[in-house]
Amino acid sequence: MAKTTTLKEFESVFPKLVEDLLDHSKTYKLPEEFVSWFKTSLNANTIGGKCNRGMSVPDSVSLLLEAPLSEQQYFEAATLGWMTELLQAFFLVSDDIMDSSITRRGAPCWYRQPHVGMVAINDAFMLEAGIYILLKKYFRKHQSYVDLIELFHEVTFQTELGQLCDLLTAPEDKVDLDNFSLSKYQFIVIYKTAYYSFYLPVALALHHQNIATPKNLKQAEDILIPLGEYFQIQDDYLDNFGLPEHIGKIGTDILDNKCSWLVNKALEIATPEQRKVLEENYGRKDKEKEANVKKLYDELKLEQIYKDYEEKRVEEIRQKIANVDESEGLKRTVFESFLAKIYKRSK
Amino acid sequence: MAKTTTLKEFESVFPKLVEDLLDHSKTYKLPEEFVSWFKTSLNANTIGGKCNRGMSVPDSVSLLLEAPLSEQQYFEAATLGWMTELLQAFFLVSDDIMDSSITRRGAPCWYRQPHVGMVAINDAFMLEAGIYILLKKYFRKHQSYVDLIELFHEVTFQTELGQLCDLLTAPEDKVDLDNFSLSKYQFIVIYKTAYYSFYLPVALALHHQNIATPKNLKQAEDILIPLGEYFQIQDDYLDNFGLPEHIGKIGTDILDNKCSWLVNKALEIATPEQRKVLEENYGRKDKEKEANVKKLYDELKLEQIYKDYEEKRVEEIRQKIANVDESEGLKRTVFESFLAKIYKRSK
Repeated sequence: MAKTTTLKEFESVFPKLVEDLLDHSKTYKLPEEFVSWFKTSLNANTIGGKCNRGMSVPDSVSLLLEAPLSEQQYFEAATLGWMTELLQAFFLVSDDIMDSSITRRGAPCWYRQPHVGMVAINDAFMLEAGIYILLKKYFRKHQSYVDLIELFHEVTFQTELGQLCDLLTAPEDKVDLDNFSLSKYQFIVIYKTAYYSFYLPVALALHHQNIATPKNLKQAEDILIPLGEYFQIQDDYLDNFGLPEHIGKIGTDILDNKCSWLVNKALEIATPEQRKVLEENYGRKDKEKEANVKKLYDELKLEQIYKDYEEKRVEEIRQKIANVDESEGLKRTVFESFLAKIYKRSK
Repeated sequence: MAKTTTLKEFESVFPKLVEDLLDHSKTYKLPEEFVSWFKTSLNANTIGGKCNRGMSVPDSVSLLLEAPLSEQQYFEAATLGWMTELLQAFFLVSDDIMDSSITRRGAPCWYRQPHVGMVAINDAFMLEAGIYILLKKYFRKHQSYVDLIELFHEVTFQTELGQLCDLLTAPEDKVDLDNFSLSKYQFIVIYKTAYYSFYLPVALALHHQNIATPKNLKQAEDILIPLGEYFQIQDDYLDNFGLPEHIGKIGTDILDNKCSWLVNKALEIATPEQRKVLEENYGRKDKEKEANVKKLYDELKLEQIYKDYEEKRVEEIRQKIANVDESEGLKRTVFESFLAKIYKRSK
């Protein structure tokens, strides 16, 4: 029987990886004060999240094996998981600068911390570099070493394409709803989020188990990309319709001119008058204008439209999971586990 | 006989590589307006420099072969050369943000161009990603494919370590000469400049010719790192003692609180009174204070100290070149060619 990891268990692996990265830096005779800076950055930017992406690597490996993992297997799978977290840290540190964000995980964003500032850009680079240092240390002999490197390269580039599209479509300081469309929204969501958050962890698990056949990778992609899209749409829905006490924050997508599913759906179905309301009120740093948009969302019955969408999409995904061909070692349970964590979540 | 490339010849290869990168982006169905953004960024940030790093790859390959390159050989070597230029573009775009620079190659820095701003960070990432997309396209079948990837990873990380050290040692807005030292200076120069500018192109040429044996790589490193250090020290010397009409700019290292060889040398030999002059005048945005530092540099006879250093260092490097073991295919001419371009240059 597969066994699910806990955050505590997963986090217990990280100090060893930090030590590896610092040891590696010391081979270049990096002066002590800079080793210590790198350590602080690694801990501040990689630890402290929910680690859903990272933990899903050992969880997926365990589901593929239909057994709990040995200590060695767990360490390797968790190390791959931590690479997805390093990739995420690289993106978050730099996205926060690009978005002028204020806080992250309840603390000031890294670039806003004392003495950091724009050094954060170089720190982001070093978080990314950590992935390949760890890959080389632990997977150089693995038969999938080249595929693992190429996978990280490709997913990194895909996420950068998504980020480019997001930044240019919805700059915080210039509202132009003509820029928005559901098709652009879909591109952003799939590339900026779905590949690295959903496809990457499972692809890593498949490589770890040497069953990353073209067929298995394709099946994983065909399910996990729509699943990731659904996850982000749900996230956008919760930003407005979720309860702050559940989601742990007060949504600001309307104020921040975010290219959210809700505004794109609203634009699709709005009458010319309703579109005018959006144009005059969306993305302005003004609570009253935000309330006007929220009122319009209610008039347009976006809550129900979302719920209908969710049922339809989940049904399609279930169907795809049911049709998975397990002959090359892939397991339906991997996808069922992802879906179970997402469907009807309130946070 | 080896043949030296020209900038025109080298630049003629780039449009094909841009096309490759755009074609690759289009496989992800990237909307046209973003393909066009990527194209603009690639051309604006990679073209326009002297391409010394990039051109030294085909030049080195030709010296190793002792023959002019066939069209195919030239294309491959130039493609590797362009990867060093993409790496440099990735660093320059982001360094300019971290250093709050104003202009680059005579135009506003990329992040200061209209509509770019912090999107430049993501653009820098995409320039870096371009390296691995091209490596995969043209070198996946090469016996050194993994070594080439690892070489770029390692040199990238080394440069990031150098940049970290530089940023924390000499922040533009906080002068503290206690932070400076010749040993820190040496670390910064070697890691921030020498590895990617000198070692990388030759290591790429050796891999291209399948003669990147441990011995050859070690010999290249042992010569090119001191050579790169000498080059940067010379650059720092020219910033103050060079003629603006030769170096094409007016040096600003004193005003900008740069951790330059000159200030580190001055700190090493200054009396307590002279050190006080430095402490009161270095790194202030003030032309009069800059003049005080320049006067002190003259008093300390830094010009002559540099010239003595240069003769001694060049002699050592010549000696190392004379001792190169060519038995595994390495050629002394590769290093002689680098040295000839640097020794006693005035720009």
